[in-house]
Amino acid sequence: MAALEFTIEKRLKGALGRAGILKTPHGVVQTPAFVPVGTLATVKSLTPEEVRALGAQIILANTYHLFLQPGEETVAKGGGLTKFMNYGGPTMTDSGGFQVFSLGFARGHGVTKVLKKTEKRLPRDEQESEHSKLVSVDEEGVTFTSHIDGTTHRFTPERSIAIQEKIGADIIFAFDECTSPLISYEEMKASIERTHRWAKRSRDAHTRKDQALFGIVQGGRYPDLRKQSAQYIADLGFEGFGIGGSFDKDDMTSIVALVNETLPENKPRHMLGIGEIEDLFEGVERGVDLFDCALPTRHARNGMLFTAQGRYDMCRADNKEKFEPIEAGCGCYTCTNYTKAYVHHLFKANELLAYRLATIHNLYFIVHLVDRMRASIMDDTFFEFKKEFLSCYKKA
Amino acid sequence: MAALEFTIEKRLKGALGRAGILKTPHGVVQTPAFVPVGTLATVKSLTPEEVRALGAQIILANTYHLFLQPGEETVAKGGGLTKFMNYGGPTMTDSGGFQVFSLGFARGHGVTKVLKKTEKRLPRDEQESEHSKLVSVDEEGVTFTSHIDGTTHRFTPERSIAIQEKIGADIIFAFDECTSPLISYEEMKASIERTHRWAKRSRDAHTRKDQALFGIVQGGRYPDLRKQSAQYIADLGFEGFGIGGSFDKDDMTSIVALVNETLPENKPRHMLGIGEIEDLFEGVERGVDLFDCALPTRHARNGMLFTAQGRYDMCRADNKEKFEPIEAGCGCYTCTNYTKAYVHHLFKANELLAYRLATIHNLYFIVHLVDRMRASIMDDTFFEFKKEFLSCYKKA
Repeated sequence: MAALEFTIEKRLKGALGRAGILKTPHGVVQTPAFVPVGTLATVKSLTPEEVRALGAQIILANTYHLFLQPGEETVAKGGGLTKFMNYGGPTMTDSGGFQVFSLGFARGHGVTKVLKKTEKRLPRDEQESEHSKLVSVDEEGVTFTSHIDGTTHRFTPERSIAIQEKIGADIIFAFDECTSPLISYEEMKASIERTHRWAKRSRDAHTRKDQALFGIVQGGRYPDLRKQSAQYIADLGFEGFGIGGSFDKDDMTSIVALVNETLPENKPRHMLGIGEIEDLFEGVERGVDLFDCALPTRHARNGMLFTAQGRYDMCRADNKEKFEPIEAGCGCYTCTNYTKAYVHHLFKANELLAYRLATIHNLYFIVHLVDRMRASIMDDTFFEFKKEFLSCYKKA
Repeated sequence: MAALEFTIEKRLKGALGRAGILKTPHGVVQTPAFVPVGTLATVKSLTPEEVRALGAQIILANTYHLFLQPGEETVAKGGGLTKFMNYGGPTMTDSGGFQVFSLGFARGHGVTKVLKKTEKRLPRDEQESEHSKLVSVDEEGVTFTSHIDGTTHRFTPERSIAIQEKIGADIIFAFDECTSPLISYEEMKASIERTHRWAKRSRDAHTRKDQALFGIVQGGRYPDLRKQSAQYIADLGFEGFGIGGSFDKDDMTSIVALVNETLPENKPRHMLGIGEIEDLFEGVERGVDLFDCALPTRHARNGMLFTAQGRYDMCRADNKEKFEPIEAGCGCYTCTNYTKAYVHHLFKANELLAYRLATIHNLYFIVHLVDRMRASIMDDTFFEFKKEFLSCYKKA
């Protein structure tokens, strides 16, 4: 018996997008949906009730972080992730692959999953010099140094799955090799082949029938590698799929379309770590069902608030006496109850409530935006909604 | 028309204690009551709804802090303290006198309001050398340096009252000279005479009829000065009274009894900045109606949790796998929903939710403890309750 049940309710005409219903052992997720990140079994600053109240349907925690603190055994003894954190709703964990990658190369070079035009590609040996400081990858797995206490640990596909089974989320991911958007075609080809071998090992190591295992498609910005990866991963019989970085900003949409054309239609697809407004629209249009991203919560804690007109800096001095909500008409708890002046004061005073109120607003904004995309698929107005929304929204 | 209405419902037999009802323009407070501190128009980490839900009936904010950030004009434009912070319930502000004192001498010498036996008294000139770094006091008022940006400011009784009128709490306090518990009889005598002149100036400067002004009794550990101060302040016609530090730990209870025997019975009395468990019992027994203290919230943020057996260190490693509430039977949100193991994990990971959950528990504990003292006055079991509670409670 499958851990998940996924039904497509409606398809977007002339595109890959769809509205679906995903049933997990801990509840239903209407897709497309934005998944708040709760790295350490907590969506930073919020209670699970608040996460629910702002509209979130499922939470993603990070295996790498929970492995280091409090450890997967403790989470297991506490009844598994959703019980340990007193949530009770659907959860997922990533495999740790991306976090381990972030420790090494990405941190050294300050790059993320998405390569902007101005960043230059480096040959792999130059990357390795940075990468190897904290992380070393071999065919069996990855050895890395804890960012907390400098101790050395090792993840293999088998180990990642064993840890994720202990943590006990409803949806878990295969362990993959994450690479920089800077690597060459030949390097990417070698990397996806390793990711494919690791996907198979992840699948073979997975024993819990009440957890759905998603395979991860890699291949960077290379269409034929992406297609090849999607086909290979699809054939391994996973219950759903992750679409991993890296991308070039310009060809992300065509790559996502290519991947989703190749993957089986009847299984859910999760785009990992992507949450920019435009990318959410493009992803939904091209058949992505789930998105997670730490940006809305991280921006919130820095006082950077989302509005339909673009990002709004809560720390700006001219908020001091604006006795109006952050966004007129916004239905979130923060906008319903507090003024810009008060939230600005809390940020200026470094008050803990500032982070909560800002996090609630940003998550509400992004969760509801994806919900509205879903509603617009259901009533055949997606393209109008997308056009109208993006015409008002100023990029940061 | 008075801003307050205070009714005594029941008196403690053979002692000064009483249960009362205090009506303010923003709601009713059943006394005795513990008043959570919301220094900067926020009880650190909590929403006003959470503060209400844990049982608090009134919040105290600090004039010194709000004057510096966001400024009393901004609070006034935002509709006054309770509206600015979206609380709506009763509020009070202190006069700024104690904060200004804390900036100077107390900070330099690491002393608080209550002198423990081991601390030695210093002659005033030695104190002054520290004191004068950030603060200078003269007959007109106090000049001080902002702890935020080093700018120089001046509080006088008139200025403190004007700021408190702008901030707009239901109960405000006269501006007093706060002194160290280390000073001599002669120095204390001179100090209370100044405090009395400032009390009169505070009273004469007060114009808002919808705010109650409380006068502050000083006099340190000297019974005759305390009695003299209580009599003088009582005669000025305030709507209620603050009992200011400093005390010797050993004679605090007799001093409080002496003050409350002297003050008129029909007006509320607030013991400023005192919140140790034993002191709350002794204060209630001797006729104190209101207490505020930043300790429960500060301890909470340091992982120091209150229980009926004494303080409990949430950061202790042996909490790691204790899947039980912080305190069995505690009705607070934290104990009802989370385990020690989870709260311990949040503290270890420096997660913001840790501070919230701990703050809710500690405030619930102390607010309910004083509520139970009130209930025990009402049903004539105060002395049994006090004995039973203190026999279990281990001092820190």
